[in-house]
Amino acid sequence: MTDRAKHDAMANAIRALSMDAVQAANSGHPGLPMGGADIATVLFTKIMKFDPKAPHWPDRDRFVLSAGHGSMLLYSSLYLLGYEDMTLDDIKNFRQLGYKTAGHPEYGHADGIETTTGPLGQGLGNSVGMAIAEAHLNAEYGDDLVNHFTYVYAGDGCLMEGIAQESISLAGHLKLNKLIVIWDNNDITIDGKVSMADSTDQIARFKAVGWNTMEIDGHDPDQIEKALKDAQKSDKPTLIAAKTTIGFGSPNKAGTAKAHGSPLGTDEIALAKAELGWKYGPFEVPEDLMDAWRLAGNRGTKARSAWTERLNAADAETKGEFERRMRGDLPEALKTAMASYKHKLAEEKPKLATRASSQKALEVINGAMPETLGGSADLTGSNNTNTSQTLPLTANDYSGRYVHYGIREHGMVSAMNGIALHGGLYPYGGTFLTFTDYCRPSIRLAALMGIRVGLVMTHDSIGLGEDGPTHQPVEHLAALRAIPGLLVFRPADAMEAAECWEIALERFKQPSVLALSRQNLPALRTEYSKDNQCLRGAYSIWGDKDADVVIFGTGSETQLAVEAAKELTDEGISARAVSVPSMELFWAQSDDYKRTVFGKARARVAIEAGIEMGWSKFLGEKGRFVGMTGFGASGEINALYNHFGITTKAAVEAAKAQL
Amino acid sequence: MTDRAKHDAMANAIRALSMDAVQAANSGHPGLPMGGADIATVLFTKIMKFDPKAPHWPDRDRFVLSAGHGSMLLYSSLYLLGYEDMTLDDIKNFRQLGYKTAGHPEYGHADGIETTTGPLGQGLGNSVGMAIAEAHLNAEYGDDLVNHFTYVYAGDGCLMEGIAQESISLAGHLKLNKLIVIWDNNDITIDGKVSMADSTDQIARFKAVGWNTMEIDGHDPDQIEKALKDAQKSDKPTLIAAKTTIGFGSPNKAGTAKAHGSPLGTDEIALAKAELGWKYGPFEVPEDLMDAWRLAGNRGTKARSAWTERLNAADAETKGEFERRMRGDLPEALKTAMASYKHKLAEEKPKLATRASSQKALEVINGAMPETLGGSADLTGSNNTNTSQTLPLTANDYSGRYVHYGIREHGMVSAMNGIALHGGLYPYGGTFLTFTDYCRPSIRLAALMGIRVGLVMTHDSIGLGEDGPTHQPVEHLAALRAIPGLLVFRPADAMEAAECWEIALERFKQPSVLALSRQNLPALRTEYSKDNQCLRGAYSIWGDKDADVVIFGTGSETQLAVEAAKELTDEGISARAVSVPSMELFWAQSDDYKRTVFGKARARVAIEAGIEMGWSKFLGEKGRFVGMTGFGASGEINALYNHFGITTKAAVEAAKAQL
Repeated sequence: MTDRAKHDAMANAIRALSMDAVQAANSGHPGLPMGGADIATVLFTKIMKFDPKAPHWPDRDRFVLSAGHGSMLLYSSLYLLGYEDMTLDDIKNFRQLGYKTAGHPEYGHADGIETTTGPLGQGLGNSVGMAIAEAHLNAEYGDDLVNHFTYVYAGDGCLMEGIAQESISLAGHLKLNKLIVIWDNNDITIDGKVSMADSTDQIARFKAVGWNTMEIDGHDPDQIEKALKDAQKSDKPTLIAAKTTIGFGSPNKAGTAKAHGSPLGTDEIALAKAELGWKYGPFEVPEDLMDAWRLAGNRGTKARSAWTERLNAADAETKGEFERRMRGDLPEALKTAMASYKHKLAEEKPKLATRASSQKALEVINGAMPETLGGSADLTGSNNTNTSQTLPLTANDYSGRYVHYGIREHGMVSAMNGIALHGGLYPYGGTFLTFTDYCRPSIRLAALMGIRVGLVMTHDSIGLGEDGPTHQPVEHLAALRAIPGLLVFRPADAMEAAECWEIALERFKQPSVLALSRQNLPALRTEYSKDNQCLRGAYSIWGDKDADVVIFGTGSETQLAVEAAKELTDEGISARAVSVPSMELFWAQSDDYKRTVFGKARARVAIEAGIEMGWSKFLGEKGRFVGMTGFGASGEINALYNHFGITTKAAVEAAKAQL
Repeated sequence: MTDRAKHDAMANAIRALSMDAVQAANSGHPGLPMGGADIATVLFTKIMKFDPKAPHWPDRDRFVLSAGHGSMLLYSSLYLLGYEDMTLDDIKNFRQLGYKTAGHPEYGHADGIETTTGPLGQGLGNSVGMAIAEAHLNAEYGDDLVNHFTYVYAGDGCLMEGIAQESISLAGHLKLNKLIVIWDNNDITIDGKVSMADSTDQIARFKAVGWNTMEIDGHDPDQIEKALKDAQKSDKPTLIAAKTTIGFGSPNKAGTAKAHGSPLGTDEIALAKAELGWKYGPFEVPEDLMDAWRLAGNRGTKARSAWTERLNAADAETKGEFERRMRGDLPEALKTAMASYKHKLAEEKPKLATRASSQKALEVINGAMPETLGGSADLTGSNNTNTSQTLPLTANDYSGRYVHYGIREHGMVSAMNGIALHGGLYPYGGTFLTFTDYCRPSIRLAALMGIRVGLVMTHDSIGLGEDGPTHQPVEHLAALRAIPGLLVFRPADAMEAAECWEIALERFKQPSVLALSRQNLPALRTEYSKDNQCLRGAYSIWGDKDADVVIFGTGSETQLAVEAAKELTDEGISARAVSVPSMELFWAQSDDYKRTVFGKARARVAIEAGIEMGWSKFLGEKGRFVGMTGFGASGEINALYNHFGITTKAAVEAAKAQL
């Protein structure tokens, strides 16, 4: 049995720090930390396995605050547990520029923040990925090295978001029994009572997707402890519906939307502290409580030492490989394998859709990198994301290297983020480029967090033909290039596809999108190059460096740029074609390099089967763009290219018009 | 009891036309039309109320093919039923450029296509909006004028998408009992068996969100008919789980993923036709079957005449108002009310956040336009989408004019599209601008369809402050401006907010985003103007037309543009500030007008608290942009603006650097 007085006092430390921090910031969300303090106290001091002295210990349990607005719950707990880089100064400067304690938890700001949350439902999606990663690595390395739980704290908002359904149905299908979700069932959202907008029977809903479910009083430490321990034994993922009172302790605001998202006010804080029996000043935690928390924080030291001993006892190869993968380093074998693959491409000069070239590159990558974990949102045969190595990962066999994510683009990318965050694996997954819209919130978070995930986005233009405008991306390249930190690649042929994949793997702190064609494309790069040409983002692919005309192209339109340059040259107008596999990489080059790419051209043309946005910087005031000005249409590919005027002829004429 | 032979033959007409059309196109999806032919035959020939001679009859039942890839199911049915603008020529030219029969159903291409589908789950979301519209208009106009059902045909893909959960939980909560969803339960997705990726108990899942459910054999016409008639009597929305065989009739491909998304092949078609007992050549339907279908198509004529009589019998005001709203015309009163509101603004010169200005405009609009239907995804107090007229629409009272959409951005916008498609109402709804990412697929479809919905997107920049980078839009203005046909407004003050709302309402064939500030903004437009200045997209707001410097600004940064222009002028450098409430509208202006906006300036600056993308066209090669280059941060608003260098000073310096 819990020493109730001690428990209450420890939980009240979270409540007090949270009230004080939100008040000092004059903004933020006190309601959740106050309501969830009992759960956090039990979870962090009695259940979870971690070590504040070794926050990156690979076999730690993961905690995801999916309801990220309740960030003070996490910050208070980390501080109390003794995470050294979460200081009282950070707590006091909650939500201030330059401090670790952002409005919502930001991955990378402080140890113990396992992911960036705030956009609702994303943490839940990440946690499914973390649990997939754990199950897969457990299958590879055994209980000795990988055996931990993923705990999630989710609110009504998380559960109401569509991504939640995609995530929980995938988790239930895969029987991810080390995933434990605590639902902060407080009946309140911003607009008021949950019942204003929702009548879902959450228990029945989770059962329908194969979850173990429980209902508890979220303020009773014994019930919380028992539920968490029972959940650990389940053969399914577990939902613990914890009935809580938002803003617990606040006499006038508890249980109402008023406690949700604004400071309680100093008067109400005084009343709340009185009600809770908390006698201390702002940001003050008495020594005995600090000791109790710090002691609880040290619980994991022993388990961590034992784990380290087991790792050290493993054979050198296993240990070395495990550590390499956890660091995210690429294996030596990859470089050699890719070099020999590129030699072969130079020889064979294959005419292939870049989605097929991507698959060939993946065959090499998956052969050399045991840590890749592929997948697709039910478009495996179209995205070409499978290779000879990718047996399916299933509930019966987690060792498979391919996740059939189902028709769940958003859940897929959010899970991929979780896999990357977990460590030890490189997730890639595919859908159609147009459906990046469906997973855009997760792509943005990958970019914001700076994590390495591979987004294989095929059918990248009107070139997909008959499926029509709903399936034809037109604005998507621009919209993705707009996301800071995201690398967007559009390779022109098999060689560029190989080079782009190499860059995507080498960029450990950036997500990458590979936009790939459905239709076949000729080999334009027919010589082996030791240097990765795509690394420059844009480079001359044909023609004289001092040419009068420069024509930029990407992906399937690079061949049109080359043809147009040749045609102009044949007509006596010196012209050059520039391939632009990645705008981001190009703009990051030196001014000198950029100048050589623009050269002395008096006329500039860009050709891409997308909208102009993003190209103006290449074209200047007089340059011309050949591309789309609106949505596509359903029809045969050549008919479409002609209809929309994306042709060699159009590029030639655009150049001449300028001269 | 059904005459089974006759039913089978009628259903086989759909199957045969679908096989033949997909084969002729050499692309497309035969599996769904063949599997769903029995359901479509019963639904269209026995159950649904419509009239091919009056396809826009407001009180018709709506049919939504949410699984849009099965488009031939719809095209065949429309042709067979006698919709005049769906010809055999269209069927023969399935998926060809210039024909109505696009790969996926495109709204506006032909009568009877109630919405554009293909991106999965969207049709389901639309249908919830259609049912909301029906319920609301029924509450206003009574059974005599508005009393119809919305039928949806959905596949596994639709149900797996997150948007499905948002949509069905909202429908269940609102007890939309005239919504009937038929789930094509064929166990197959593109990658193979559904069981590879999903184990959901769909019946339990729908029950958990308050739906009536049934399970039937989707090839038994009697079961289908009974289920649909029972569903009509339900007091909840109904899910009919119809077990079907994908590619029904194809001896070698039925029941497998092979029937899903490619032509069967001429040999297999011959075998299938033999198995089905279909003795006719490609695209041939014998006269007796055509007659049977056309006769069924005429069933609704009587009901429609009776309805027209009821409408004509109504008092002139009701009839006139009903017809006006169905046409989508604005009421006369609106113009006057807005003019008087703008006079008041010129007088009061309020310093307000544009989200608050928007609310004031909405107060006037909702007063003059009974057809507005507002809402928010649980951010009512933040989005300021409520006004004195907006009592909630609830399961107990559908007459309310405000939908608490819950934390369901995607479901909200998809439902809003459905409300607009239904006709008779103008939907608007709010969330934070950063969460346009969550509903982007639906925003894109609104633009593609060309329908009028109002997206109230507040907290439109780092100006929201402490919530931090997850909540701060940076790339979203660019990403939204990238969507063809979408109007993106960023008003600078209360007057512009009023003008932008007026334009949004007047544009009957375009969706509009209003990007609105959290923070207060001074009145910059302090004179009444009869002409809507924002209609030009960009216009001089301060300074001399021949100034040497032009500074473009939008929204909260327009004041900085004006201040910078004033400061430069004070220093003896003539400068002008241009407000850019809508880039799309500006680029659509005459070259003459555009030239006057650029004027003779030798230096150009643009200032916006977002990324540069989209501005290069304003700036040319030498112009300078003052804005964001990456993600935001958590902090106090002024600290953030200074930290990121978005200041008057920066704009002044950028101008000087060019001169």
